[in-house]
Amino acid sequence: MAKEKKFVEEITAMEEDFAQWYTDVVKKADLVDYSTVRGCMIIRPYGYALWENIQKVLDKKFKETGHQNVYMPLFIPESLLQKEKDHIEGFAPEVAWVTHGGNEELHERLVVRPTSEVLFCDYYSKAIQSYRDLPMLYNQWANVVRWEKTTRPFLRTLEFLWQEGHTAHATDEEAKEEVVRMLNIYADFCENYLAIPVVKGQKTDKEKFAGAKFTYTIESLMHDGKALQSATSHHLGTGFAEQFNIQYLDQNGQWQYVHQTSWGISTRIIGGLIMVHGDNRGLVLPPKIAPTQVMIVPIAIHKEGVLDYALDLKARLEKVARVGIDTSDKTPGWKFNEYEMKGIPVRLEVGPKDIEKGQVVLVRRDTNEKIFVSVDNLEEKLIELLDDIQKNLYNKALKHREEKTSVATNMVEFKRALEENPGFIKAMWCGSLACEEKIKEETSATSRCIPFEQEHIHDHCVVCGEKAKHLVYWAKAY
Amino acid sequence: MAKEKKFVEEITAMEEDFAQWYTDVVKKADLVDYSTVRGCMIIRPYGYALWENIQKVLDKKFKETGHQNVYMPLFIPESLLQKEKDHIEGFAPEVAWVTHGGNEELHERLVVRPTSEVLFCDYYSKAIQSYRDLPMLYNQWANVVRWEKTTRPFLRTLEFLWQEGHTAHATDEEAKEEVVRMLNIYADFCENYLAIPVVKGQKTDKEKFAGAKFTYTIESLMHDGKALQSATSHHLGTGFAEQFNIQYLDQNGQWQYVHQTSWGISTRIIGGLIMVHGDNRGLVLPPKIAPTQVMIVPIAIHKEGVLDYALDLKARLEKVARVGIDTSDKTPGWKFNEYEMKGIPVRLEVGPKDIEKGQVVLVRRDTNEKIFVSVDNLEEKLIELLDDIQKNLYNKALKHREEKTSVATNMVEFKRALEENPGFIKAMWCGSLACEEKIKEETSATSRCIPFEQEHIHDHCVVCGEKAKHLVYWAKAY
Repeated sequence: MAKEKKFVEEITAMEEDFAQWYTDVVKKADLVDYSTVRGCMIIRPYGYALWENIQKVLDKKFKETGHQNVYMPLFIPESLLQKEKDHIEGFAPEVAWVTHGGNEELHERLVVRPTSEVLFCDYYSKAIQSYRDLPMLYNQWANVVRWEKTTRPFLRTLEFLWQEGHTAHATDEEAKEEVVRMLNIYADFCENYLAIPVVKGQKTDKEKFAGAKFTYTIESLMHDGKALQSATSHHLGTGFAEQFNIQYLDQNGQWQYVHQTSWGISTRIIGGLIMVHGDNRGLVLPPKIAPTQVMIVPIAIHKEGVLDYALDLKARLEKVARVGIDTSDKTPGWKFNEYEMKGIPVRLEVGPKDIEKGQVVLVRRDTNEKIFVSVDNLEEKLIELLDDIQKNLYNKALKHREEKTSVATNMVEFKRALEENPGFIKAMWCGSLACEEKIKEETSATSRCIPFEQEHIHDHCVVCGEKAKHLVYWAKAY
Repeated sequence: MAKEKKFVEEITAMEEDFAQWYTDVVKKADLVDYSTVRGCMIIRPYGYALWENIQKVLDKKFKETGHQNVYMPLFIPESLLQKEKDHIEGFAPEVAWVTHGGNEELHERLVVRPTSEVLFCDYYSKAIQSYRDLPMLYNQWANVVRWEKTTRPFLRTLEFLWQEGHTAHATDEEAKEEVVRMLNIYADFCENYLAIPVVKGQKTDKEKFAGAKFTYTIESLMHDGKALQSATSHHLGTGFAEQFNIQYLDQNGQWQYVHQTSWGISTRIIGGLIMVHGDNRGLVLPPKIAPTQVMIVPIAIHKEGVLDYALDLKARLEKVARVGIDTSDKTPGWKFNEYEMKGIPVRLEVGPKDIEKGQVVLVRRDTNEKIFVSVDNLEEKLIELLDDIQKNLYNKALKHREEKTSVATNMVEFKRALEENPGFIKAMWCGSLACEEKIKEETSATSRCIPFEQEHIHDHCVVCGEKAKHLVYWAKAY
C-alpha cells in the first residue's frame, strides 16, 4: 500500500538498524529535537506531555504514601560532595564543574548536581534532632547533569529530568520497608500504566549505587533484546549519616544514626516506552499514559455537516477520554500516517456515509484492526477498547520478554543464547566479582539483577562452576 | 496574653526591623531553609506546596490560552549567548560558567541559563519554516541561575524556579496581543488568587529586559512601602529573529522575520505574598493559594469521642476545602501559634462542649475573629468565610497601597513623600534618561512603570521641569 510504502521510506525498519529506527521515531514522532548544546535534548511538546503524565501519576502515588515535595539547590560545593568516599568516586568522573560566577573565579568549585544525596544529607544533619522528626519523607522533581561521552535522546543525555526521593528513618527495618515500597510503586507504574513488564531484584555490589548498602531495581527488556534499568531504589544504610553526622535522640535519650533511602525514575523511561512498544510505523503508546488517546479524523471534511458532527463527537468523548481532532485541510492519508507515527492508541474516522449509518470507524494502533461501532454506545465501546489495548500491549511485551529469556548453565550456552536469541539470560552465579567481570569481558552482558523470585536452575556458577549462590538475570543493557 | 507574648519573643516585629521580620517569617513558617550553597535556598515542603499551587493555576491558564510546555537545555554555549548584543551585555556579569566536564576542560565554556531566549531562538530558527508553523506558543517550567552578590530567600537568590514563556508570531500586532494577554493573566492571578493588587504598565527603556523592544510589568507594593516587580511580559520585536535568522515564508511566498515575546513569573512572588499579607504573628495566606485552608485543632483530644468527631468533620469538610488536622499531643496553645505562624486562613476548634452544643469555633487568621458556627451548615459557612477572607486580604492590601501612594510635582515633594510615607510616588516625567537617573541617585527610588492608566497630574517633569510625557510610578524596590 502507498501508505506503508511512504513509511518504509521515512523511517528505518527496526530489523535493519534498531538504533537508527529509535532515532527516527523520537524525531518523527515529535518527541525531541537535538540542541546545539552537546548531549542535551530539547523535549518538544509531545514528549513533554508524556513526561507530565508520568509525573502526574507518580506524584500522586508519592503523596499518597506520605512523601512531600521539596527543592534543593542545583549546585554542590566540592567539599560537600567529597564527604562520602564511595559516592564521590562514583560520580566525580562524570560531573560538570562551575568554576566562575559573573567575572570572578570561585573560591570553591561547584558541581552541577548529578544526584542530590549529599544536599539532602547536609539538610538532614540540621533538620533532624529527635525521633519525633522521623521518618522524613522527601522527594524532588529536578534536572540533573552527568557528563556522558556518548549520548542518545532520553536514554543517555548530559542533562535529564527525574524525581529523586530521599528519606530518613529511625530503624534499618523501616528504611528497608521504604526501599521495597518505592520499588513496588515503580513496578506497578511500569506494568499498569506504561504496560512494561519488569523484573524486580537486587543489584550486585558491582552495579549498586555509589554509596549504597544495596540497590533494588526494576529491569525491563527492549524490543532488540537489550535491557533497560527502569527505576532504582537504594538502601543507604547509615553510611551517609555517619559522614554527615545525621543523628537523632531516640526515646531512651540515646543518639542514633538515621537509616536512609533514595529512589528515582527519569526521562530515560520514555526511551523504554518507545523501545518496548514501538513498531515500524512509529511510536505505540499505552492508553493510560498517552497524551491523546483518541484522534478524530473527519473524512470528506468539507461535505456539509461532517465537521460539526465530528466536533460534537469530540465534545461527547472528552468526558471519557483524552480526545484530539484534526480539522486541517491535510489529506486523511497524511493524518493517518501522522497519528500512527505518534502512537495514538485509537483513530476515529467519521465521514458522510458513517453519519448516514449512525456509526464511526475505530482503528486500533496496536493491531491495526478496524472496528465499526454504532454511535449510540460509543463511549462504552471506546472505554472497553482503550482497556483492551492497554492489556494487549502489556501481554505482547510480556510474551516478547519470555521468548527472549534464555537459561544457561555454562558459558558456551550463555554465549550461544546471547547470539541466537538476544535478551535476558538466566544463569546461576557464585557471587564473586571475578565471575561477574568475566561475563562482561567475554560477552559485554552485565548482571541486571538478582531477582526476588529466585529459581534453582543449576547447582554451579555459570562461569567458574563453583557452588552457586543466586540466580541472576544477565543482559546487554542500555 | 501569654500567646502574644511568646511571638513577640520569637519573631521580630515588622515595625522594628522589616528585613529581620521577613527572615524570621520564612524560617519560622517552614517555607525555606538556608543551604551551605551560597545564595541558594532549600524550599521546604510548605514553601514548595505554595509553589505547586501557583504552578497549577498558571499552567492551566497557559494551556487554556493555547500554550504548550517544552523543556530546553540547562546550558548555553558562550557563542550562542553572544548572538544578541544587548542580551549578552545585560546577562554576562551575572552568570555561572561551566568550564570543565568530568576531568576535561571544555573547548567552549557553557553558561548555566539565566533565561532561555537564545535557546528558544536557536530552536525556532530550525523549527519555523512557514506561516503555517505560527504562532509557536511555548512555555517551560525550569530553574535558572543569576550570580547575585547579595541574596534573600525568594526575593533574590542565585538559583530560582520560574516559568518562561517564549512565543513567535507572524505579525507585530499578534505579538503585541500576546504580550498583553500574558500580562493580564499574571495580573488576574496576582489579584484574584494571591490577593495582591498590581499596577500594570510599561517599563522605561532603562528598566526593560535586555534585548526587548519593550517590557510590560505588574508592580505591587509591599508592607514596608517598597515595590516588587511581580511578573513581566516582553515584546522582543524582530531583534532576536534577525540575529538568529528566524524567518518564515509568508502566504505570498516572501521570507519574513518572526515577532517574538517572552514572559515570566518566579518563586520571587512568594516573597511578595509574604510581604503583602504577613503580620507580626507570621504568614497570612489567601485561601485560594493556601496549601491548607482550614486546620482542625481538637480541644481536650483525649476526652472520649473528640478525636473521632474531629476526624469526621475533616472527612466532611474535605469535600469543599483543603483541610488539615493536628492530632498530636502538643497543647492547643502551641498548635494555635504554629498555624497562625503558617498563615492558615481558618482554624477550626472543636472540644467536648462544642460537640454538646452542635457547634464549632472558626477563627479567622486575617482578623483573629472567633465565629461560632452550627455544624449543620458548616460547609456553607466555611465556603463563605474563605471567600470573605480572600476579599478582605485583597481590600486591605489595596487600601494599604492607596494610603502609601503619593503625588509629587517637584523633587522637594518627591523626597518628602518618600521619607514621610514610603511607597509609590506618582510623578510626571519628560522621558529623558538623565532625569530618571537623577531620581535614582538622589532618592534611590527607581521608575517602576509607566502605568497604562495615565493621569495628568502636572505639565512638567518632576526633575527638570521640561514638558512632561508620562505619569510614572516610582518607588524603592526589591
